[in-house]
Amino acid sequence: MNTSVSLLWASLGLLALSAPASAWEYTLIDANTPAKNWSITSEQLGVKTDKPFSVTLKTLHGGRQEGVSLIEINTGAMKMTVVPNRGMNVLHATSGNVRLGWDSPVHEVVNPAFIELNGRGGLGWLEGFNELVTRCGYEWVGHPGMDKGELLTLHGRAANIPASKVVLTIDEKPPYAIHLKGELREQAFKKIDFLVDTMLTTEPGATHFTLHDRLTNQGDYEKEYQALYHSNFGTPLLEEGAKFAAPVREVSPFNDYAKRDLKDWQTYRGPTKDFDEMVYNLFPYGDAQGNSLAVLHDKAGKQGVSLSFNINQLPVFSLWKNTDTTGQGYVTGLEPGTSFSYNRRFQRDLNLVPKIGPKETRDFEITYSLLSDAKAVNDALKRVETIQQGRKTEVRETPLVDLSQEK
Amino acid sequence: MNTSVSLLWASLGLLALSAPASAWEYTLIDANTPAKNWSITSEQLGVKTDKPFSVTLKTLHGGRQEGVSLIEINTGAMKMTVVPNRGMNVLHATSGNVRLGWDSPVHEVVNPAFIELNGRGGLGWLEGFNELVTRCGYEWVGHPGMDKGELLTLHGRAANIPASKVVLTIDEKPPYAIHLKGELREQAFKKIDFLVDTMLTTEPGATHFTLHDRLTNQGDYEKEYQALYHSNFGTPLLEEGAKFAAPVREVSPFNDYAKRDLKDWQTYRGPTKDFDEMVYNLFPYGDAQGNSLAVLHDKAGKQGVSLSFNINQLPVFSLWKNTDTTGQGYVTGLEPGTSFSYNRRFQRDLNLVPKIGPKETRDFEITYSLLSDAKAVNDALKRVETIQQGRKTEVRETPLVDLSQEK
Amino acid sequence: MNTSVSLLWASLGLLALSAPASAWEYTLIDANTPAKNWSITSEQLGVKTDKPFSVTLKTLHGGRQEGVSLIEINTGAMKMTVVPNRGMNVLHATSGNVRLGWDSPVHEVVNPAFIELNGRGGLGWLEGFNELVTRCGYEWVGHPGMDKGELLTLHGRAANIPASKVVLTIDEKPPYAIHLKGELREQAFKKIDFLVDTMLTTEPGATHFTLHDRLTNQGDYEKEYQALYHSNFGTPLLEEGAKFAAPVREVSPFNDYAKRDLKDWQTYRGPTKDFDEMVYNLFPYGDAQGNSLAVLHDKAGKQGVSLSFNINQLPVFSLWKNTDTTGQGYVTGLEPGTSFSYNRRFQRDLNLVPKIGPKETRDFEITYSLLSDAKAVNDALKRVETIQQGRKTEVRETPLVDLSQEK
Repeated sequence: MNTSVSLLWASLGLLALSAPASAWEYTLIDANTPAKNWSITSEQLGVKTDKPFSVTLKTLHGGRQEGVSLIEINTGAMKMTVVPNRGMNVLHATSGNVRLGWDSPVHEVVNPAFIELNGRGGLGWLEGFNELVTRCGYEWVGHPGMDKGELLTLHGRAANIPASKVVLTIDEKPPYAIHLKGELREQAFKKIDFLVDTMLTTEPGATHFTLHDRLTNQGDYEKEYQALYHSNFGTPLLEEGAKFAAPVREVSPFNDYAKRDLKDWQTYRGPTKDFDEMVYNLFPYGDAQGNSLAVLHDKAGKQGVSLSFNINQLPVFSLWKNTDTTGQGYVTGLEPGTSFSYNRRFQRDLNLVPKIGPKETRDFEITYSLLSDAKAVNDALKRVETIQQGRKTEVRETPLVDLSQEK
Repeated sequence: MNTSVSLLWASLGLLALSAPASAWEYTLIDANTPAKNWSITSEQLGVKTDKPFSVTLKTLHGGRQEGVSLIEINTGAMKMTVVPNRGMNVLHATSGNVRLGWDSPVHEVVNPAFIELNGRGGLGWLEGFNELVTRCGYEWVGHPGMDKGELLTLHGRAANIPASKVVLTIDEKPPYAIHLKGELREQAFKKIDFLVDTMLTTEPGATHFTLHDRLTNQGDYEKEYQALYHSNFGTPLLEEGAKFAAPVREVSPFNDYAKRDLKDWQTYRGPTKDFDEMVYNLFPYGDAQGNSLAVLHDKAGKQGVSLSFNINQLPVFSLWKNTDTTGQGYVTGLEPGTSFSYNRRFQRDLNLVPKIGPKETRDFEITYSLLSDAKAVNDALKRVETIQQGRKTEVRETPLVDLSQEK
Repeated sequence: MNTSVSLLWASLGLLALSAPASAWEYTLIDANTPAKNWSITSEQLGVKTDKPFSVTLKTLHGGRQEGVSLIEINTGAMKMTVVPNRGMNVLHATSGNVRLGWDSPVHEVVNPAFIELNGRGGLGWLEGFNELVTRCGYEWVGHPGMDKGELLTLHGRAANIPASKVVLTIDEKPPYAIHLKGELREQAFKKIDFLVDTMLTTEPGATHFTLHDRLTNQGDYEKEYQALYHSNFGTPLLEEGAKFAAPVREVSPFNDYAKRDLKDWQTYRGPTKDFDEMVYNLFPYGDAQGNSLAVLHDKAGKQGVSLSFNINQLPVFSLWKNTDTTGQGYVTGLEPGTSFSYNRRFQRDLNLVPKIGPKETRDFEITYSLLSDAKAVNDALKRVETIQQGRKTEVRETPLVDLSQEK
């Protein structure tokens, strides 16, 4: 077992929500605090680390990004950019030449004020989609369509909810963990009262970060919920011959079109005209504690990224291979979730529309780690093998949902 | 007859739109005046009143309330908070321990920029609904649904129209009446050209306020219009055994579900799981001038609120009993209107879709008064009796509209 | 041939996109530059012209125009106002007593954040429509309706796209041409990646301006596109007996209703109750280079406006006669376009849904010139005759599209 990976998961994941004994705390945005250009550096804090770190907030102007703020955490080894106005999504993370993220045709960081989620037949979400990590949920995820008389728009509202309170804390003791918290309120009278406490945690010198979200059903009634972490990677990690690995119990094509490449589902095409997208629905294995790991790496196996998550929290995984042309958005999504990307109405029969009781909470944790050399890639792949433990991967030829009769 | 109540109505209601002879005037928001944190106090004005008064504007940040301003008028005896960005709605009013208002699952004061009224099948309005007084109208009110080929969204646009000009005036002479005016523009080429001049009036030391709105059809064609003042009260006035009273000519259940509690329509349940809501449609009586009064008081009859209005302006009244759980939003709505809450297409046959000719105006006035002790409650109940004058209340068992064939 | 008009077209139109050798340049809005009140004058630049000129930016507040900026270019002879938040549309242009523009029932300059284009069955656009020049396109134009399973909203998105970068340049040499550029991004993942580089060009002392827009399909796939320049004029140019002239190959009524006035299609009614609108679909003639000219002038022929455009860029022309009452918005639209105002699904058969290949560009240029006296009107009318060259105008009695079976 790869100690560093599991340790990381334990230290950043499970412990993250508990407040540090002593920490610097900065409220960046709340009811009385407008976002304004701001920064803090390790030097200003009087902290000596191998590499200086900093956190910066700046606000964008013009176009549909008017008023959107970006919060950049520079660990000294990686810069991660969070968008408080868009569900605390992670826009991109870069470390040296390696960029986690992708190039969407959506070039602006779009203020949700300019998005009509109900536009384009429920596909309005596509007008703002360009992040490394886009939160999907929490009332529903999946493709647009009617469910119980209501048009569910693509992938829910989370990505278009501006965080109502954003707080930065930096531990006063080594390793000086950096926590960026933001509250998302998904609320409508008679319908829903969800609070999502999001937190991104990293530390000086790190090339990894952990998202730890806690969903609370503040209402008095049990509600359905769904969550999916749409984690998206383009070049340089994605290229012809790039590979995906995870401990997998079952893989199946999302639809008939995805059947065609089923035998090569772990390998990526280069940018391919008219390819559009193929999606594979995975049920990952976890270790005894449910911990699982998904890995994407380049053809040479010299760099990659891993997502560490727990199948007790996020039991299914969508592998989205959007290897169309560069301009169309050459990208793959590694998407741990409670659910696949079918419309919610199809997922009840799959037991993938969980419920959350009044005042109950659900935690979702994912650690994103850059694999910066062949050794790191290999260690991660070994960890995948360790979790798989030689257990069988069932390759299911037919989609879980028969969409053929949909129009 | 209760002199103080009727006098109040006369002095604040009818005379309110005429400009005072001499007044301090402050433009808080207009084309050239951005909302900014601001306040004025009686001390600054050099005014001596029993209790000092003040008016404060502050702007909220973060989440979906980014850029929303709150204007608080503190009379010295009651604090009333108005939301210019949301149709000059009154968010809440508090006096000592008593709060007029309620606790909605919508915790933020939501900027209409983030609302899609057409979302959720026309129920997007619910994502911002949390006020003491929410203006509904003026092109239509009522439940969402198709009418003449157009989806009418829940309760119209007024609550999501930011006021384009907000002016505060304070009379320079006793009783130093305080007027807060705001203009709402409900305009669409080819469709509608409504201007709503809203005004809230109160005075130093008062625990009451009057809304006086004037709707002008600025267009050249006669138009249908509807208005409904969704006035919402939770604890402490609402509780098990709380009572509603008004002079009533006819009461009927809104739908089949509301038939069940018809015999107890004037009494409230405590928070009741799975209750949802029952609505009763009332035709109030007025006095010789059309003045009417609705009263809500707690079980002990020691505190309450009254709404004074005129049935020539607002001929019908919806009593909305949403006595579900606390977390679901335990609340009752006292809703004087031109119309009930059915979709507009059902109300034409009821003669509840009035028309307004070109350049014509319609005035709507309601005075909200805190009843702070048993005497005040009793006086108000006596006034209700006086208006009823022993006239009969018809209890109609069947809803005015047969919704049973609706889907 | 009218030299001044064609020269104008050549000098302002074709050359405009090339950067001047040497110019003052001011970035008014971009990612790092919020719009703020600002102005520059010829005096500040040390430029001597017959009349001083200036450019001013100011930001509006309150209502649905909160945060909308207006950029006014005052040439010394004409003031043109551009709205960067609304697709760089031209709100109005005034010269002395003559106003190019109209009086819409929409009185505010509406921030697109408050518009739901999908509202009112796809007519939400009407809640912001009040400009002299409203850009329509570029993914589609035309009436709302379903096409390929998607609701196309009225006239596309362009008018509700805020410009993401706005730059002013003023040539340092005579004639000190003034260029105002703005970038519009019409982007949605999987759907569209259009960039529209807009530019308005004028010069000190001028009573004309040129729009030169360049549409780039930044995507990797060929896409359909449509463009229509909704150019709108009310009083004083529009009045009973006002006339329209253009070199026309074919004119036909848009629908059955417009058949009634077909014989008088070039003459305007005064404000006419219950008239609503009649639209005529024109195919203009151009000269050898494709240059064409449309003219609107008052009854006396003493003042007017001309639109110079090229039929190779904009082959069709909608003449929108909305001569209803003043309050309803008494206005005519002179609308050069790639397409008419039918829903896109009707226009494929008319060959009016052009395509644009990957990385290709399309240019659209229109020069708007005030005709300030009888001579200017006559010169323009002669130019129309010159282009017509005695060629025949076919008056087609039946609409190009049979809408009678539409509901």
